[in-house]
Amino acid sequence: MEEIHFLDDIWVGKDDLKVSVFDLSVARGYGIFDFLRTYGNKPFRLAEHIDRLFISAKLLDIAVPKSKEEIEKIVYEGIEKNAFKETAIKIIVTGGISIDSITPGKPSFIVTFTKAPEYPQDYYTKGVKIITLPFTRFLPEVKSLDYFAAVVGMKKAASLGAKEVLYIDEEQRITECTRNNIFFVKNNSLVTPAEKGILKGITRKVVLEAAKKVSINVTEREITLDELPFFQEAFNTASTVEVLPVVTIDDTAIGDGAVGPVTKKIMKAFRDITSDRG
Amino acid sequence: MEEIHFLDDIWVGKDDLKVSVFDLSVARGYGIFDFLRTYGNKPFRLAEHIDRLFISAKLLDIAVPKSKEEIEKIVYEGIEKNAFKETAIKIIVTGGISIDSITPGKPSFIVTFTKAPEYPQDYYTKGVKIITLPFTRFLPEVKSLDYFAAVVGMKKAASLGAKEVLYIDEEQRITECTRNNIFFVKNNSLVTPAEKGILKGITRKVVLEAAKKVSINVTEREITLDELPFFQEAFNTASTVEVLPVVTIDDTAIGDGAVGPVTKKIMKAFRDITSDRG
Repeated sequence: MEEIHFLDDIWVGKDDLKVSVFDLSVARGYGIFDFLRTYGNKPFRLAEHIDRLFISAKLLDIAVPKSKEEIEKIVYEGIEKNAFKETAIKIIVTGGISIDSITPGKPSFIVTFTKAPEYPQDYYTKGVKIITLPFTRFLPEVKSLDYFAAVVGMKKAASLGAKEVLYIDEEQRITECTRNNIFFVKNNSLVTPAEKGILKGITRKVVLEAAKKVSINVTEREITLDELPFFQEAFNTASTVEVLPVVTIDDTAIGDGAVGPVTKKIMKAFRDITSDRG
Repeated sequence: MEEIHFLDDIWVGKDDLKVSVFDLSVARGYGIFDFLRTYGNKPFRLAEHIDRLFISAKLLDIAVPKSKEEIEKIVYEGIEKNAFKETAIKIIVTGGISIDSITPGKPSFIVTFTKAPEYPQDYYTKGVKIITLPFTRFLPEVKSLDYFAAVVGMKKAASLGAKEVLYIDEEQRITECTRNNIFFVKNNSLVTPAEKGILKGITRKVVLEAAKKVSINVTEREITLDELPFFQEAFNTASTVEVLPVVTIDDTAIGDGAVGPVTKKIMKAFRDITSDRG
């Protein structure tokens, strides 16, 4: 079956889902997006993702060409038209065609619908390795198209058998992964970087809800790289990978290097929320 | 007359110069480019720009789909086909369509041909204001499509009547502008940031040649922001703006706030080189 996507005002096939080379999304990596997935092929936390798109837009002074209600309608329509088992949805607002190759123009509005990715089961039973990269995102609260460092970092990760990249800022603070937030376990409680200077992950927020439901304490605070040896467990959170256990960071095993009991409890509590489509 | 551009293997009009939304150039700001202009509608320093494109490609492990000789031929053909008075040429290699939205795919090869931009005469007779922005580029030696911070910075500059943005790194070092290199004048000599941690500007290199021809000394070294009050003149260099006098940085006048004698000498020596098409 051919994929159907939304481009500006029409539904198009994959081969017609194109933007001008003069659009700042191509020319300058300038634009915003949001990304979500379905459970039971119903969009999960759609309103929160659309709200965050509008926050990104506001921070950059980009005018989103559609209303929140229109976007919601397009997302539901696209899910139905494509009829995947589970759908990954990406909503993009581009920088638009620029007259001088630097000043934003009239944005294009795009929604892509693809099959939700699945990951090998042993990612979740054995956990994964991730690597660190010294990098500070520009305007980290904005979900922009600027993932140049992420692509470079993920290529390096792949070459080392790692599945994600953890950004470390110039003060040696742990901030976030390329497309994920990070959590650690210390004395049966969760520790995660505070919201300032990171993208406010919606899966991160769902994990905070999950932790509350199963009475696990969470501390949101500054975390520095030299604390790694003192954590017993770690996991990543994102719409795609959900709750992904991390057992090695660079060459340091986290705790005993296996998926720990607190992570397992959070994974289960998270699944309970998503299967409720809450 | 319609513009004609090169896309992968064919010549296309402006309306057909498009790339897939799934190409990492759109999705992730991932790709490389180089940019040059003509003098007398002959490409200026074409070989050096093509060499730099291949250096960017090598640093990212991107396979450029054309040879240097093929690119040279396409550039000459495009200039002839478009028949502008002077041409701006942008050579782009995209990240390609990715299967997982993060791993690079088969790159697209694009060359755009547009009318070379012209700037108001008083930019050069009165000089311009620029502003500073705390920002460190990721892999600064690569001319990548990642200009998200540049677009944001230039919007802020425009709102303040400024024409460029000067990046300041976390150690308060002056590095480079969004698309330009920066030079200062101190005691009739030029001072410019050393090449490490900046893009190796080809116009910067031509200015070094120009300075040599008119016996002006140049020191390439680390420059910190607190040195600004001790400089008598400043200017920006880029293929587009050539040698652009800078008379104000943020709210600090450089020297007496007028275009100075050393800058004028360099502007003239630069014009002598470009009019020779050297």
